[in-house]
Amino acid sequence: MTNKDARTPASVQDDTSPEAGKSIGWHKAYVEGSRPDLRVPVRQVHLTNGQSVTLYDTSGPYTDPLVDTDVRRGLPPLRENWIIARGDTEEYAGRPVRPEDDGIKHTSPRGGLRNLDAVFPGRPRQPRRGRDGQPVTQLAYARRGEITPEMEYVAVRENVSPEVVREEIAAGRAVLPANVNHPEIEPMIIGKRFLVKVNANIGNSAVTSSIEEEVEKMTWATRWGADTVMDLSTGRNIHTTREWVLRNSPVPIGTVPLYQALEKVDGKAEELTWEIYKDTVIEQAEQGVDYMTVHAGVRLPYVPLTANRKTGIVSRGGSIMAAWCLAHHKESFLYENFEELCEILAAYDVTYSLGDGLRPGSIADANDEAQFAELRTLGELNQIAKRFHVQTMIEGPGHVPMHKIKENIDLQQEICEEAPFYTLGPLTTDIAPAYDHITSGIGAAMIAWWGTAMLCYVTPKEHLGLPNRDDVKTGVITYKIAAHAADLAKGHPGAQEWDDALSDARFEFRWEDQFNLALDPDTAREFHDETLPAEPAKTAHFCSMCGPKFCSMKISQDIRREHGGSRAEVEEGMAQKSKEFAASGNRVYLPIAD
Amino acid sequence: MTNKDARTPASVQDDTSPEAGKSIGWHKAYVEGSRPDLRVPVRQVHLTNGQSVTLYDTSGPYTDPLVDTDVRRGLPPLRENWIIARGDTEEYAGRPVRPEDDGIKHTSPRGGLRNLDAVFPGRPRQPRRGRDGQPVTQLAYARRGEITPEMEYVAVRENVSPEVVREEIAAGRAVLPANVNHPEIEPMIIGKRFLVKVNANIGNSAVTSSIEEEVEKMTWATRWGADTVMDLSTGRNIHTTREWVLRNSPVPIGTVPLYQALEKVDGKAEELTWEIYKDTVIEQAEQGVDYMTVHAGVRLPYVPLTANRKTGIVSRGGSIMAAWCLAHHKESFLYENFEELCEILAAYDVTYSLGDGLRPGSIADANDEAQFAELRTLGELNQIAKRFHVQTMIEGPGHVPMHKIKENIDLQQEICEEAPFYTLGPLTTDIAPAYDHITSGIGAAMIAWWGTAMLCYVTPKEHLGLPNRDDVKTGVITYKIAAHAADLAKGHPGAQEWDDALSDARFEFRWEDQFNLALDPDTAREFHDETLPAEPAKTAHFCSMCGPKFCSMKISQDIRREHGGSRAEVEEGMAQKSKEFAASGNRVYLPIAD
Repeated sequence: MTNKDARTPASVQDDTSPEAGKSIGWHKAYVEGSRPDLRVPVRQVHLTNGQSVTLYDTSGPYTDPLVDTDVRRGLPPLRENWIIARGDTEEYAGRPVRPEDDGIKHTSPRGGLRNLDAVFPGRPRQPRRGRDGQPVTQLAYARRGEITPEMEYVAVRENVSPEVVREEIAAGRAVLPANVNHPEIEPMIIGKRFLVKVNANIGNSAVTSSIEEEVEKMTWATRWGADTVMDLSTGRNIHTTREWVLRNSPVPIGTVPLYQALEKVDGKAEELTWEIYKDTVIEQAEQGVDYMTVHAGVRLPYVPLTANRKTGIVSRGGSIMAAWCLAHHKESFLYENFEELCEILAAYDVTYSLGDGLRPGSIADANDEAQFAELRTLGELNQIAKRFHVQTMIEGPGHVPMHKIKENIDLQQEICEEAPFYTLGPLTTDIAPAYDHITSGIGAAMIAWWGTAMLCYVTPKEHLGLPNRDDVKTGVITYKIAAHAADLAKGHPGAQEWDDALSDARFEFRWEDQFNLALDPDTAREFHDETLPAEPAKTAHFCSMCGPKFCSMKISQDIRREHGGSRAEVEEGMAQKSKEFAASGNRVYLPIAD
Repeated sequence: MTNKDARTPASVQDDTSPEAGKSIGWHKAYVEGSRPDLRVPVRQVHLTNGQSVTLYDTSGPYTDPLVDTDVRRGLPPLRENWIIARGDTEEYAGRPVRPEDDGIKHTSPRGGLRNLDAVFPGRPRQPRRGRDGQPVTQLAYARRGEITPEMEYVAVRENVSPEVVREEIAAGRAVLPANVNHPEIEPMIIGKRFLVKVNANIGNSAVTSSIEEEVEKMTWATRWGADTVMDLSTGRNIHTTREWVLRNSPVPIGTVPLYQALEKVDGKAEELTWEIYKDTVIEQAEQGVDYMTVHAGVRLPYVPLTANRKTGIVSRGGSIMAAWCLAHHKESFLYENFEELCEILAAYDVTYSLGDGLRPGSIADANDEAQFAELRTLGELNQIAKRFHVQTMIEGPGHVPMHKIKENIDLQQEICEEAPFYTLGPLTTDIAPAYDHITSGIGAAMIAWWGTAMLCYVTPKEHLGLPNRDDVKTGVITYKIAAHAADLAKGHPGAQEWDDALSDARFEFRWEDQFNLALDPDTAREFHDETLPAEPAKTAHFCSMCGPKFCSMKISQDIRREHGGSRAEVEEGMAQKSKEFAASGNRVYLPIAD
C-alpha cells in the first residue's frame, strides 16, 4: 500500500550494509503502535519521483542494519514481555531432551554422540505453559474481548482496526499462531478477511541436507516473502534442527509431529503409540512450534476408500496413520485422543493445522469420497478444538483440476464453519513435473480468490527431489504472485496500490522504481540488463521490447499530454490539439538515432 | 491421449539420431487418414510396462529421423498437391521484392546492400492466389459443405469427426489458418471445441537478434509445443527473416503487417498510408503468412478514452494507429478500407486476428471503456470479414485481475458471435516483472477454461527485454500447462488420459516413464538426478522427497494390495487382511537399510 494514511514510519534507517548490494532503493522501517515496544516492520520503497510505497515485510530483523543478528545467538524475544505481562503462564523444568529426539539410538549402527557443535548455543531458557493448564490462546483472549499486543500488531500490519482482528479470531475465521515459547516471532494473522499468506516448507530428510542449510533456507524464504515456515525434517537431528530454526525465525514455525514420532520408533508405523506421539508434541510445544499438522481425520473406515484410487494416499502423515490403523485394525489414536491433545495445545497456544491425510495425489482422485469423508471429520474435530479454545486451521488439497476447486473450498468453508483453509496448491494438472510451482500456482491463485487464507508453496522440485535455495525462492515468489493476485481479485483494500505504483513507474520509464517495486528486484534488473546492459538504458525513455525507434508507451504519453483532462475537455479540444500535434512535427517516438 | 482407439500409427520409427540424446522413450509416429498423403504426426511415448501413450505433436519433421531437414532448403510442401487439386488458385508473377522491404534505404546512413548470404536459398517459387480474386478460404469451403484434406488432418489430430471440424469452421467458431502460399504447414485448428492452442512470439528488433536466431527460436518453440508462431520483427531484414521462418515452419505463422509498414516510412506513423499498408499485406500474403493482426478497431473517437488511463495504450499496433489518427485527425485507414482488405485476405486464405490495440496495460485499466469500445468495433468487423469468407479470430487482453476475466471473455463471445478468442495472458497482477509468464499463466489457464481458443505466451522477459532461447522454452512450457489445465477443466475428451498415465507411472515408481511423459522430460530428469544422481535410483521404489526409510506411495500400494476390489469385498475382508498384514511383519516401508 502506498503511504497515504496518517501513520508514518517511526524510523527509516539507511540500509547501508554490504549485503544490501544494489537494492538501495528501499529501506527497512517500522510503524509504531500504541506502545513503544510495538513496532511493525515495513519495506519502504523510495521512488525517484519523491513518493514512497510501503510494503508488507516478512524478512525479520535480518534486513535491519541496526540490528546485530547472529544465528548462534538467535533473535531477540520480541513478545516475551507481552507474554509475561499476561500473568497466565509459568516457567517449568520441561521435558529433558533425549538422544532419541535427534534419532540417536544405542541400537543404531550409526549411533553414538551427535556432533556437539550442532547444539544450539544461544541463551538457556526454560519452557513456559499455561498456569494450571489453562488455555493461553489468542482465541481464548479474543473470546473474552481482550485485544492483545499480538492482535494490535497484526492490525497495524494489515491496516485494519484491532477490533476486526479480535472479532475474526473469536469467530474462528482467523488464527494468530504464536506459541508462548516462540517469543521471537513478529505476529501475523491467517484468515480470509486478511492478506493471503504463503507458507514455505523446509526440512532435511534421510537422503540429504544439513542444519545450516535449513536455517539458511528459512531466512531466505522469509526474505522473499514467506509468512510462515514448516520444518518437515525427517532424518537425523530433527530436534536440534528445529531448535536452530525456531530461535532464528521471525515467522511462525509449523511442524508435523508425526514425522518425528515415526523416527523414534525407527520408521515402524505400527509401533507408534499415543504416548510416544504425545511426548513428541510436548517436546515440540516446549521448543516453541507455533502450529502443528495433525492427521486426526484419517480414520480406520476411510482407509479402504483409497484402495481403488489412482494414486492412493500421498500424504506422508496420512499414510503413516493408515498403516497404523491397518496394522492394529483399530481406530486412529489421534482421533481417539483428540480431546487430550487439545488440552496440551491450549496450554502453549499451539495452533492446529488439521491435516488432510487423504488429499488426492492426482487429477483422477480429486474431490473423491475418501477426501470428503475426511473433510467431514475435520469439521467435527474443528468444533472440538474450539471447545478447548485451540486455534484451528484446515489443510486442503493437493491435485484438483480447475473446475473442481470451487466445490472443494465451498464445502470446506461450510463443513468447517469458515475456519481458515490452508491449501497445498492445488495442482491443476499432473503432466508437468519440474514445473509444479506453476501447475499449482494457477490453482493457488484461484482457491485463494475464493477464500483460502494461507497457501502452502510448491517448488519446481515437487515430486522430484528436495528444494535447494533457488527452488525455495522460485516457490515463494510464485506463491506471492498467487496470493497477491487473489488479494486483488478479493478487492483487498490497498492491494492494488502496489500494482498501480509499479504501473505508474513503467508508464513513466522510471526503470529503477520498477525494479525496486518488483517482487524480485534482483531478477528484474538482471533480465533488463541482459538486453540493454548500459547504465544509461535505465533512464532511457524506451523499453528493450520495441527499442528506441518506436515506443508505444511514448505515444501514449503524447496522447495523455494531448488529451489529458475530462472527457468533455478532451473532445472539445481534440481538433485543436491535433493541429498542434501536426505542427510539432508529429514526434511520436523519441529522436534517438537509429 | 492413450492409444485406445482403433487407429494405429502408420509407422513408428526409431529415433536414433544423436540429437535425440537421452529421450529414447518416445518416437515420432504418424496416424494415416483416408489418403496416403495425409499422415498426422504424433509423439508416441513407450512405457516400461509395455503400454504406449500418444500425444499431440507440434515439432514438425525436425523430430523425424527419416526426414532430412535443412534450413537452407526449407520443409517439404506438404499441402501443395491439395491446394493445386482444388483448382481454384493460380500462380502469378507476384510483387517484386524491394530493398525497402528489408528496411534498406538509400537515404539511410547505414544503408547499402544487405548481406547476400541472408537471401533464402531454397527452391524458387511463384506466389499463388484465388483465381479471379475468388475466396479460397477454409471458411468458404466449409460453408459449401466441403471437407478439405486440411479439415480431415485436424480431425485426426483432435480425435474428432471431420464433420465437427467443418461445422465449427463454417459457424465461425473455429479457424484453420493456412495461407495457400504456406504449403509447408501441418494443419491445426483454433476453436473452443478443440484443444486449447499456444502461440509463441519471436522476432528481431532494432536493438538485438539475428535471422538465424529467429529461425532457431521458431523450431525450438514448436519442439516444446507452440501451435503457431508470430514473427514480430521490427528492425532490419524483416522480409528476409520472415522468408526463412516461413519456409522452415511446420506451424502457421502470424505477423503484424503494420510493424513492417512503419519501417517503410522510417518509423513515422503519420506518414503511413493505406497504399503502403496494403502493399505490405500483399507482400506478406505472397510469402505465406497464415494470419495477420490488424488493428482496425482503434478508431479515432476511442483515442481520447485512453487519455486518463494509468498506462495509456500499450499495444504497439494500437499506438501506431492512434498516432496516425491524431496526426491527421481522421478515421483509421484500416477501419475505412476494411472491406478491401477482406478481399485481399480471402484470395490467399489469410486469417484475420483482429488486434486489441486498446488492451489494458495494467490492472487499473482492465475492462475499461476504451477496451470495450474497441471490442464492439471488433464485433462489427468480424461480421464484415465473414461476409467476405475471411476466417477471423479476435485478440484479447492484456492485464486483467482474476475477478474481471470472466466478464471479459463472456462479452467477447457475445459481441463477436463466438469467434475464437486469442488472448495474451491475461496478466493477473503488475507487481512481478521477470515472472510475468506466471502472473499471466494464471490468467491464461482461467480464460482458456472459460473459452479462449488460443493463448499467446508471455515469457519471463516480458516488460524487460527480448526473450532468448531459454525464455522461449519457459514461456511455451508455462502456456502448455495453462492450456492443458484448461482442457482438463473443460472436460476435453482424452485430455485426462495424459495425466492418468503420468500419475500411474508415479504411483508405480516408473521413473523413466514419468520423465518421458513429462511436458519437459529433460528438466524433470535433471531435477531428479540432482538429489539422487545414481542410476539405480531411477528404478528405486521410493522418491527423493521421503527417502527410502519411509514412503507414502509404498504404503498406498500396500493398502491397495490389501484392499483392492469392491467396497463390499474390502469391508468384508478387512479384519482378516489386517491379521495377515500384522503376520507379514507389518512391512509398510521397503527393507532398504538406513
